[in-house]
Amino acid sequence: MSSTWGKNIEISIFGESHGSGIGVVINGLPAGEDIDMDELLAQMARRAPGNDKTATPRKESDLPEILSGILNNKTTGAPLCTVIRNTNTRSQDYGNLLTTPRPSHADLTGHVRYGGYNDLRGGGHFSGRLTAPLVFAGAVARQILERRGIKIGAHILSVGNISDRPFDPTNISDELLASLGRKKFAVIDEASEAPMRELIECCRMSQDSIGGVVESAVTGVPIGIGSPMFGGVENVISSIVFGVPAVKGIEFGSGFDGSKLKGSENNDPFIYENGTVKTATNNHGGSLGGITSGMPIIFRAAIKPTASISQKQNTVDIEKHENTELNIKGRHDPCIVVRAVPVIESAAAIAVLELMMEKTTL
Amino acid sequence: MSSTWGKNIEISIFGESHGSGIGVVINGLPAGEDIDMDELLAQMARRAPGNDKTATPRKESDLPEILSGILNNKTTGAPLCTVIRNTNTRSQDYGNLLTTPRPSHADLTGHVRYGGYNDLRGGGHFSGRLTAPLVFAGAVARQILERRGIKIGAHILSVGNISDRPFDPTNISDELLASLGRKKFAVIDEASEAPMRELIECCRMSQDSIGGVVESAVTGVPIGIGSPMFGGVENVISSIVFGVPAVKGIEFGSGFDGSKLKGSENNDPFIYENGTVKTATNNHGGSLGGITSGMPIIFRAAIKPTASISQKQNTVDIEKHENTELNIKGRHDPCIVVRAVPVIESAAAIAVLELMMEKTTL
Amino acid sequence: MSSTWGKNIEISIFGESHGSGIGVVINGLPAGEDIDMDELLAQMARRAPGNDKTATPRKESDLPEILSGILNNKTTGAPLCTVIRNTNTRSQDYGNLLTTPRPSHADLTGHVRYGGYNDLRGGGHFSGRLTAPLVFAGAVARQILERRGIKIGAHILSVGNISDRPFDPTNISDELLASLGRKKFAVIDEASEAPMRELIECCRMSQDSIGGVVESAVTGVPIGIGSPMFGGVENVISSIVFGVPAVKGIEFGSGFDGSKLKGSENNDPFIYENGTVKTATNNHGGSLGGITSGMPIIFRAAIKPTASISQKQNTVDIEKHENTELNIKGRHDPCIVVRAVPVIESAAAIAVLELMMEKTTL
Amino acid sequence: MSSTWGKNIEISIFGESHGSGIGVVINGLPAGEDIDMDELLAQMARRAPGNDKTATPRKESDLPEILSGILNNKTTGAPLCTVIRNTNTRSQDYGNLLTTPRPSHADLTGHVRYGGYNDLRGGGHFSGRLTAPLVFAGAVARQILERRGIKIGAHILSVGNISDRPFDPTNISDELLASLGRKKFAVIDEASEAPMRELIECCRMSQDSIGGVVESAVTGVPIGIGSPMFGGVENVISSIVFGVPAVKGIEFGSGFDGSKLKGSENNDPFIYENGTVKTATNNHGGSLGGITSGMPIIFRAAIKPTASISQKQNTVDIEKHENTELNIKGRHDPCIVVRAVPVIESAAAIAVLELMMEKTTL
Repeated sequence: MSSTWGKNIEISIFGESHGSGIGVVINGLPAGEDIDMDELLAQMARRAPGNDKTATPRKESDLPEILSGILNNKTTGAPLCTVIRNTNTRSQDYGNLLTTPRPSHADLTGHVRYGGYNDLRGGGHFSGRLTAPLVFAGAVARQILERRGIKIGAHILSVGNISDRPFDPTNISDELLASLGRKKFAVIDEASEAPMRELIECCRMSQDSIGGVVESAVTGVPIGIGSPMFGGVENVISSIVFGVPAVKGIEFGSGFDGSKLKGSENNDPFIYENGTVKTATNNHGGSLGGITSGMPIIFRAAIKPTASISQKQNTVDIEKHENTELNIKGRHDPCIVVRAVPVIESAAAIAVLELMMEKTTL
Repeated sequence: MSSTWGKNIEISIFGESHGSGIGVVINGLPAGEDIDMDELLAQMARRAPGNDKTATPRKESDLPEILSGILNNKTTGAPLCTVIRNTNTRSQDYGNLLTTPRPSHADLTGHVRYGGYNDLRGGGHFSGRLTAPLVFAGAVARQILERRGIKIGAHILSVGNISDRPFDPTNISDELLASLGRKKFAVIDEASEAPMRELIECCRMSQDSIGGVVESAVTGVPIGIGSPMFGGVENVISSIVFGVPAVKGIEFGSGFDGSKLKGSENNDPFIYENGTVKTATNNHGGSLGGITSGMPIIFRAAIKPTASISQKQNTVDIEKHENTELNIKGRHDPCIVVRAVPVIESAAAIAVLELMMEKTTL
Repeated sequence: MSSTWGKNIEISIFGESHGSGIGVVINGLPAGEDIDMDELLAQMARRAPGNDKTATPRKESDLPEILSGILNNKTTGAPLCTVIRNTNTRSQDYGNLLTTPRPSHADLTGHVRYGGYNDLRGGGHFSGRLTAPLVFAGAVARQILERRGIKIGAHILSVGNISDRPFDPTNISDELLASLGRKKFAVIDEASEAPMRELIECCRMSQDSIGGVVESAVTGVPIGIGSPMFGGVENVISSIVFGVPAVKGIEFGSGFDGSKLKGSENNDPFIYENGTVKTATNNHGGSLGGITSGMPIIFRAAIKPTASISQKQNTVDIEKHENTELNIKGRHDPCIVVRAVPVIESAAAIAVLELMMEKTTL
Repeated sequence: MSSTWGKNIEISIFGESHGSGIGVVINGLPAGEDIDMDELLAQMARRAPGNDKTATPRKESDLPEILSGILNNKTTGAPLCTVIRNTNTRSQDYGNLLTTPRPSHADLTGHVRYGGYNDLRGGGHFSGRLTAPLVFAGAVARQILERRGIKIGAHILSVGNISDRPFDPTNISDELLASLGRKKFAVIDEASEAPMRELIECCRMSQDSIGGVVESAVTGVPIGIGSPMFGGVENVISSIVFGVPAVKGIEFGSGFDGSKLKGSENNDPFIYENGTVKTATNNHGGSLGGITSGMPIIFRAAIKPTASISQKQNTVDIEKHENTELNIKGRHDPCIVVRAVPVIESAAAIAVLELMMEKTTL
């Protein structure tokens, strides 16, 4: 199913950008898990638009309402459903007629896929707004995992050609992950923030946008989680991360760079460290044969530049069957990478919970 | 499920490297599809070991036996099962005791995952040999797709730091794909073959291995196939491609490089070409919002260097609980990328058939 | 997943009886289908409590709100989510402590299953109220099917030992089905209504309840829908019908009575009728080998007497670990069979749409 | 998927009656489970044709070959695949042309479903022979369950109008279940065997057949297994049991008879018995709200009379488009109920293992 994901933990995301509301149903959560709503809202705030530039808190209308699955701040084991109202939409301004599809958007492909009946307004079900319920689900998963010592964090590894310092894949402290979670602009090396911001601002000023890479880490996962072939860590994580709009690539451990190495360079020797088997390096990114090694899971997601740019672009008029030009109106993030950080973390959290909920013995 | 994949077309791969046999059950194939067994065997031969270095045809014992699902060379609509016998195994030589896990292999993680009961011999269910049934399934899917004008091909984009010419993503001819399929060493620019071979031979001589990248293209897919969020082209393809051992990364269209671009550079303008809407460039790799655009689907898979190298490596002895050294015996491919080409193509073929078999109207 | 159902059409039902709201997300609906909201509400009204005994329309607070998936009265192809608010609940009256489980309810089994964290109030996620979103989903499916000539109806075949006239399985008119849909007490032979009502009233007066059987028919389904083994008409329908609380049995065609017959009595001869192959009788209930025959699909669901009766019953006190007695308070339907009719029809509608949405050719 | 079943334990059954072989792939089995092959073959022998009438053991050619998933008589955790060769077939005698479909068989519906490409020979994928791999899978599941104190048995509750004594649903000893498993004609009250056999023989002599009911019991299942709505005991069991050809009805506990009762009669009071909560009666058949109560799971499956009878029957000629008569040749079981007993047990075993493998806490 397109908008549902998972076997053990199933999320079903619904909503269109300018409909009445969006939300998610989460099935398969263990019962009796404490849910801290303040912490959950804090995670959602990280993704919210406008978060970075002003101190103003999110508009209250964006608050998720829990309809089911939580009682007295604990999961009941029944499906957890939350709804976030769409307010501040001006649906009446829009028709639902597609004439000039925006380049590198889903306007045209969605139009064909749904026979012209999909809700175009604000991007409809394709909108980046649909990552809000994903972050909600991720925030729930994260609380369950953190209680078991599993920590998740991510940072802006690059914006355009400007890079942050990558994670040390063998040594990622809880403190580092926590501090990244508190930053509005999540970089490890704070010296990289200013040039990145400059580049983004420069793109905005020139009615353009810029892409980047988010690097994510999951620590504390026990060895032996996941399965070979199609049930592996990489399969499960990639299948949800590509559900985040604008993600066009993913790599684990040394990834594409590792493909340039020799085996003697890329192999990770096993060593005993305080009685536990570890690997001296972590080019495998925490997964061997699809199964966790106990080392941090490390992956990077490539995020394309925001497709909505306000400078004039070439496109077609599918009514008149001719080439034409397009000026996209409205304000759009010149760099979605900043807000993608908590979204990617959320996808990782859901994926790891899914893997952890696989029963392998009786 | 770990070793099953797909919703509309379901493949279930079974077998262990040194057990009696390996194979695949394919569910959901349309009935009445012609299956050309010679063509099918030709695809399997592309993956077979020893294919490249000698003219000797595959040993007959490696022939797949069709147990069900094909009658008079046509699919019956019932599950198609094929079995490939494991011969030339020397199971008696092996115990099933793991003491010194091979670095960057699944020895240790599989041992923990299966409580020490997994079949270690020859890698068991983790073995690269399990890609043979995947190629079988892909060869079936490919024949069904080709009849509808959908063509699939791949090439060795790089070995270590040596690169082939990439696909022109807006212009991939059937002839190019067909010629790649006939090559034992699938490169577009034949000038890249010699240096790549030299590098591989050099690694072999130094008891080492080398990784690389496979680039794959699927042409002729109609616009409008696939779905948003988790049912997209990227999700479906990545979830099966990561089932190929040694794949550690995947990117679509401009991928990681695209993340360095501006929107004005990465966006693909729509244009009319002979009455059909196309994109002038193809940085989106054939998928917008998870849905096919009618442009070629382009993706690249990063393949790590073969983990089995015969030079001495550091590892642990999990019996004695101490660090130790390991010499892996036996012959291994110094560069798995060459034989990975038809495997990646096969995964792509199955994924595209899966997407095509989604019913969207009544 | 427990509260999700379906492969091609997936429904995900959420909510607890005394939580904020209940509802359903429907995935996989074809886009562009007209949805008549009045007709949809009429279906929901058939299930609503209090419907039979007074002319008062449903309380407006029970209206489903569409959050997504419908625009301008047509499906958009995105997930359709509806929410029904829980009002008129007195949550504050309840604790969430189970001491004396009600006989033949899920109080004790749910308590163990969810470690005591499930929402007990009003039955929580086990409540019959959760059939409201099922009826919503069924009403959507029904409109899509009716447009293709597929009609669905059901009647009260029996209450206790009092029986209605069964369907003539070879001859079920659209008029009959339509007239049953308009009846508050859905019987074919209206002479059976009075004695059934008397029996129900008698049970109510004696603080007791009574079970019954609902017989359902689906007409107009083309021949060739469904699949052998686990994808058959019977598998698909039974797997959803047993999701209706209190259903304890299901049979297709001649069912249990047919098991007493000889082959020569139970077999259904094929005949040509106006150029079409039919069967002279319909003991097979419209399914042969799990695949529709073009004859009406006929099935019967056995519904146990309402477990909640107000006379004194024996149970246990799981706090004190001793046997005790229980008086259940509150008003309960003395016979759930009457209101089960549209619920069973809805389950059938969803199941048939699921079967119809299976793609079998390319 | 039609021929695959299960979420936690997935079985994928393949094969056609006159193809090369049939078999099953079982995914999700816990690793390290002892598999006693003699016991497994003994289970398969119970289903084998000719078992009842002669002392001749099954032909060796019917032996299942294990291709994968078992090493040193223990499950490895990888997919378990077994193949049973089809021998004694005379494929060359058959064409694959359907002209006169057999009444109450899947000949016509399968022909339409698969566009005439399905393998008709011997019933193809619809053949009762496909229950052999189901019994294999059930025998594996049974061994895993029995080790945990879960026992499964069934008996012939009725043949035509002749009935055996039903299970006492509150008191089913391991000895009773074991003794039923050893009987060639599984009845509880041995006095019922002779009249049942007479009736079957009478039907055979008159070129006819007879149906019946199999009653099955599963004891020792802990309380709290299963889930509400669509993940319940009834949903899971029915969805696999209807995969057994000729099953047309299923009921749990008091089932259809229970629908005639009052709540005060059908409700099962809770009582303490040796410190454990039980129910004094077991009209609920071991499942409340879809979740096990710890009482025996009791269900009955209605099996229609064998459709293949050798007396002349009316059917159609779909080539000539006219009514005609048909004489089915070959030998068929006049009463499939006898051999259905181990098949139904096997379906129950797989279903219960599936339910037990659901992970509900972390």
